[in-house]
Amino acid sequence: MAKITKQSPFAPTENIEVFDINGMECASINCGLYKHKEDLSLFLFKTNTTVAGVFTKSQMASPPVLTCKENLKTGKASALIVNSGNSFAMTGKKGQKAIDEITSSISQEFNIPKNEIFICSTGVIGYLPEYQKIIKGLPKLKEKLSKDSISQTASAIMTTDTFPKIYSKKFTINGKEITISGIAKGSGMIEPNMATMLSFIFTDAKISSTDLQEIVSQHVKTTFNAITVDSDTSTSDSLIVFATNQVEIDNNISEFSSKMKDAMESLAKQIILDGEGITKLITVKVSGAKSFESAQIIGKAIANSPLIKTAITGCDPNWGRIAMAIGKTSEDINLEKLIISIGNNIIYENEEISPLYNEESVYKHMCGDYIDISVNVGVGNFSATIWGCNLTHEYININADYRS
Amino acid sequence: MAKITKQSPFAPTENIEVFDINGMECASINCGLYKHKEDLSLFLFKTNTTVAGVFTKSQMASPPVLTCKENLKTGKASALIVNSGNSFAMTGKKGQKAIDEITSSISQEFNIPKNEIFICSTGVIGYLPEYQKIIKGLPKLKEKLSKDSISQTASAIMTTDTFPKIYSKKFTINGKEITISGIAKGSGMIEPNMATMLSFIFTDAKISSTDLQEIVSQHVKTTFNAITVDSDTSTSDSLIVFATNQVEIDNNISEFSSKMKDAMESLAKQIILDGEGITKLITVKVSGAKSFESAQIIGKAIANSPLIKTAITGCDPNWGRIAMAIGKTSEDINLEKLIISIGNNIIYENEEISPLYNEESVYKHMCGDYIDISVNVGVGNFSATIWGCNLTHEYININADYRS
Repeated sequence: MAKITKQSPFAPTENIEVFDINGMECASINCGLYKHKEDLSLFLFKTNTTVAGVFTKSQMASPPVLTCKENLKTGKASALIVNSGNSFAMTGKKGQKAIDEITSSISQEFNIPKNEIFICSTGVIGYLPEYQKIIKGLPKLKEKLSKDSISQTASAIMTTDTFPKIYSKKFTINGKEITISGIAKGSGMIEPNMATMLSFIFTDAKISSTDLQEIVSQHVKTTFNAITVDSDTSTSDSLIVFATNQVEIDNNISEFSSKMKDAMESLAKQIILDGEGITKLITVKVSGAKSFESAQIIGKAIANSPLIKTAITGCDPNWGRIAMAIGKTSEDINLEKLIISIGNNIIYENEEISPLYNEESVYKHMCGDYIDISVNVGVGNFSATIWGCNLTHEYININADYRS
Repeated sequence: MAKITKQSPFAPTENIEVFDINGMECASINCGLYKHKEDLSLFLFKTNTTVAGVFTKSQMASPPVLTCKENLKTGKASALIVNSGNSFAMTGKKGQKAIDEITSSISQEFNIPKNEIFICSTGVIGYLPEYQKIIKGLPKLKEKLSKDSISQTASAIMTTDTFPKIYSKKFTINGKEITISGIAKGSGMIEPNMATMLSFIFTDAKISSTDLQEIVSQHVKTTFNAITVDSDTSTSDSLIVFATNQVEIDNNISEFSSKMKDAMESLAKQIILDGEGITKLITVKVSGAKSFESAQIIGKAIANSPLIKTAITGCDPNWGRIAMAIGKTSEDINLEKLIISIGNNIIYENEEISPLYNEESVYKHMCGDYIDISVNVGVGNFSATIWGCNLTHEYININADYRS
């Protein structure tokens, strides 16, 4: 694994309280894929747990991803197993066979249907691991099931992450208390396309898999699909949401949906806040676009530009590079109406530098930890927000040496 | 300007002989846009000089680019003026007016038609310079016209470049000696879309502007449009080719075309060899693709991936990242036939790591200066080559501090 020497400056300083989910147990162990940290987590669900998910659109989608996509058709989940240390991606038919053996063993060990078992793997690509270690770890996981917490699993799925990503909230719908708790991992190879790295969200709400899938698919566009660390899309991206169906929500779908969006946005942002080498969070707001998709493309062109990411590292209000990034897309824009702002400062408007532009004030904003870029492209009424991070020496340190 | 402390390790160690072009004179001076280096070059052509060009597809194309595109319609060139230090991009109507004033002044000073004057500018985006300095420099340029060489202009157009990019060759067609000499600049904001940074090629061959345009448009696809430093497309990219029509080529268009391709490929490669922060040249060959365009998209996904560029910096044969980059495109591929090679080593074939794969040998290749990546995507007969460079700490040093 990479030599991570520096923790993200955005790492949380306090532990948050993580609420258990009624209808679910979990456990984490070290099974030997990594030397010194937990690397295998199991989540066991009560009957009637519904499930929804979105997965990487990569053409190199890993065997675990393919298995999850297949099992999602049942709409039901009995277990989720997650390993770090190896992604099983690019291991071909042998990798698929290994995943089959693992899920068969889980099915036997816990007496649950094989097609209700979800499996996610993260780590190096292209090498089949000694996956028997995972199978041999199952009895130990079984033993720990009632004792472990969701927080532990958040640490167990980390690879180059510098902090665990956790969300946990309780709220009431029609006087009944509902809980949503979720975890995520990822800090490099992050420009999710349709889903993300690994993220698992759990709730005790009663909701059908169809409704759950609709909610997840809707919100993924403005949450996990709105972040980018390095424009590289992983072969293992998976977001899976499990509902144990313990608490009635009496058809208050939209209220539940909005709470689910909060969880998804929080976890997506936590991933960016741990973007490899990050020292500054970049929020790009694009408005005046012809469509939501167009606004996202322009926002990602800005958030992914190495010249903008390095300018931000250097606190340089080099807005010409923002213009460059907009210009390199083939999206509809109106140059006469284009407005470019950094922080609260309008810099470019009416085809020239704004007379109000104060470089000192913009420079001050650029020196902060949170960089806000806004552009209005003047052709429509759609907008989108993209979250990204700056490009630093630490990104190179981490990635020039990941496998050594 | 950025603090460039390190010269590219690929900078040429010997001066090449640069041949003058019959029918053309040139001169370079410092007009005050930069403090300490020449920043303004003029090229004056004899009547009958034909011209062809390709320009940035950026929607933020600069006023000089718009002027060149307009004047290209005449097919004739009388002069080319080039300044470094300011690109005039994003200066709106005021910038366009400034460019008009400059070309009007050149038209008067040299008594040539205004619509046969080409103008190119490179440097910071978004600030109208004191362009009167350019106009005031014209008499001084006129004075030096007969004395200066093409080599000098190659230095005058540099910004973050660490060496001047020059091509010069003599050859014979039907016993008549023809010369092609060209220059280029650019090392960051380089992923040309249809054209490139600034490059000017001159020849004394007799050729119509229509034929010349056809040749240039054809070869730009496999030369300037096949390089990428950082995926960022400049607002000023311009390649213009001038033919002074002094030497008959007797309709040997295809022979001339092949020589022109040599010049274009050499200059494009020189730009990559001076890519910001480069220590390793990356050559990506994609074969088995459905179309040339598809092969280029896959090649650029590989050459632009920050994770691959940093792995190469660290000599890490992390071929999983190559698979990831192919997978994130939506181009047609056949996973069963996919072959990935580094150097002469096949790494991945038949859906698994090749039994012949020798990590030691691949590592040795990765430690060299020239990194060759080949992929066969197994769906067709088209191929393409992309040239790129690695991502290093120096790229960040240069770009976190460009304007300070």
